[in-house]
Amino acid sequence: MIIDLCVIPMGTTASVSGYIAECQRVLEGTGLSYTMHSYGTNIEGEWDEVMAAVKACHEAVHKMGAPRISSTLKIGTRTDKSQTMQDKIDVVNELLNS
Amino acid sequence: MIIDLCVIPMGTTASVSGYIAECQRVLEGTGLSYTMHSYGTNIEGEWDEVMAAVKACHEAVHKMGAPRISSTLKIGTRTDKSQTMQDKIDVVNELLNS
Amino acid sequence: MIIDLCVIPMGTTASVSGYIAECQRVLEGTGLSYTMHSYGTNIEGEWDEVMAAVKACHEAVHKMGAPRISSTLKIGTRTDKSQTMQDKIDVVNELLNS
Amino acid sequence: MIIDLCVIPMGTTASVSGYIAECQRVLEGTGLSYTMHSYGTNIEGEWDEVMAAVKACHEAVHKMGAPRISSTLKIGTRTDKSQTMQDKIDVVNELLNS
Repeated sequence: MIIDLCVIPMGTTASVSGYIAECQRVLEGTGLSYTMHSYGTNIEGEWDEVMAAVKACHEAVHKMGAPRISSTLKIGTRTDKSQTMQDKIDVVNELLNS
Repeated sequence: MIIDLCVIPMGTTASVSGYIAECQRVLEGTGLSYTMHSYGTNIEGEWDEVMAAVKACHEAVHKMGAPRISSTLKIGTRTDKSQTMQDKIDVVNELLNS
Repeated sequence: MIIDLCVIPMGTTASVSGYIAECQRVLEGTGLSYTMHSYGTNIEGEWDEVMAAVKACHEAVHKMGAPRISSTLKIGTRTDKSQTMQDKIDVVNELLNS
Repeated sequence: MIIDLCVIPMGTTASVSGYIAECQRVLEGTGLSYTMHSYGTNIEGEWDEVMAAVKACHEAVHKMGAPRISSTLKIGTRTDKSQTMQDKIDVVNELLNS
């Protein structure tokens, strides 16, 4: 499955890049495919592994001192075909360039 | 923790109430506290149990025939205090009525 | 259309009920139908009026001193039929009780 | 401000790349900065212009025949400093590389 994860630390300073960098380190440690964009990170993999990564991000951000977190997660699953993060972008770009 | 789950079946008819009703049945079976609103369902509990419920909803909706699902999940965790779904509403209402 | 709005103040204390109460006051002033739940507020109305209300909430929360806001908005529009926030809940409950 | 927009057509086929491509064309026509990723599109600009673009995407997708749409929007505003979509990525990458 493919998810989009946006972790928002609350009760901290307005700048949260340190927390986001830590989440990237957590994701790097999982071995999952992931790509950061300007408002979240796309992650690809099996349900249990991806969700374990989301939990690890929450734990890491709390451990850094954030007393509260509100994440927004988009979860995409499909049974009709297998599709990677890159496939989704490719198929739209092909339509735009045809 | 408290989450807000909105399951969106794709590749189906525009009316998805049958799928949403099935998710409510799944949640009822979990024993977790949950409250449906007009654009999702709030669920309260421990991380692993709540996330297992989200997964069970995806599985149930696919089993009903939806080939694709895109859910939006808001996940709230906090280490500074314990707070129920009702607490969150009560504290705002107290401020509004004071 | 029907939206679900969740305004998250950043760079503030972890408790944000004062900001949320202010958003409820802003919504009350718009004349739109709205219902607060434990992880956001459902709002119903025409696109431009509803979006003006969302903007007014952001402005009010910044005015109260929050240096940064990250909101999550779900936006539902449909051309096949007219449907209120209550309709959406009623149709699911009818299925559950039948 | 910076938003993340994910438009989900409902009551259509499970493959929605044609609708997403059309949204990219709509965004291209607005002159706003935008970047598509695997689960949405980041858009940068002033509130009214960005929100007009979101509305135009909904209208275009309905016009193509989708009877129902549920979008998820993340909206980021801040008063403490000006920041582009690229700035957000750069600052995290600098932390990761330092």
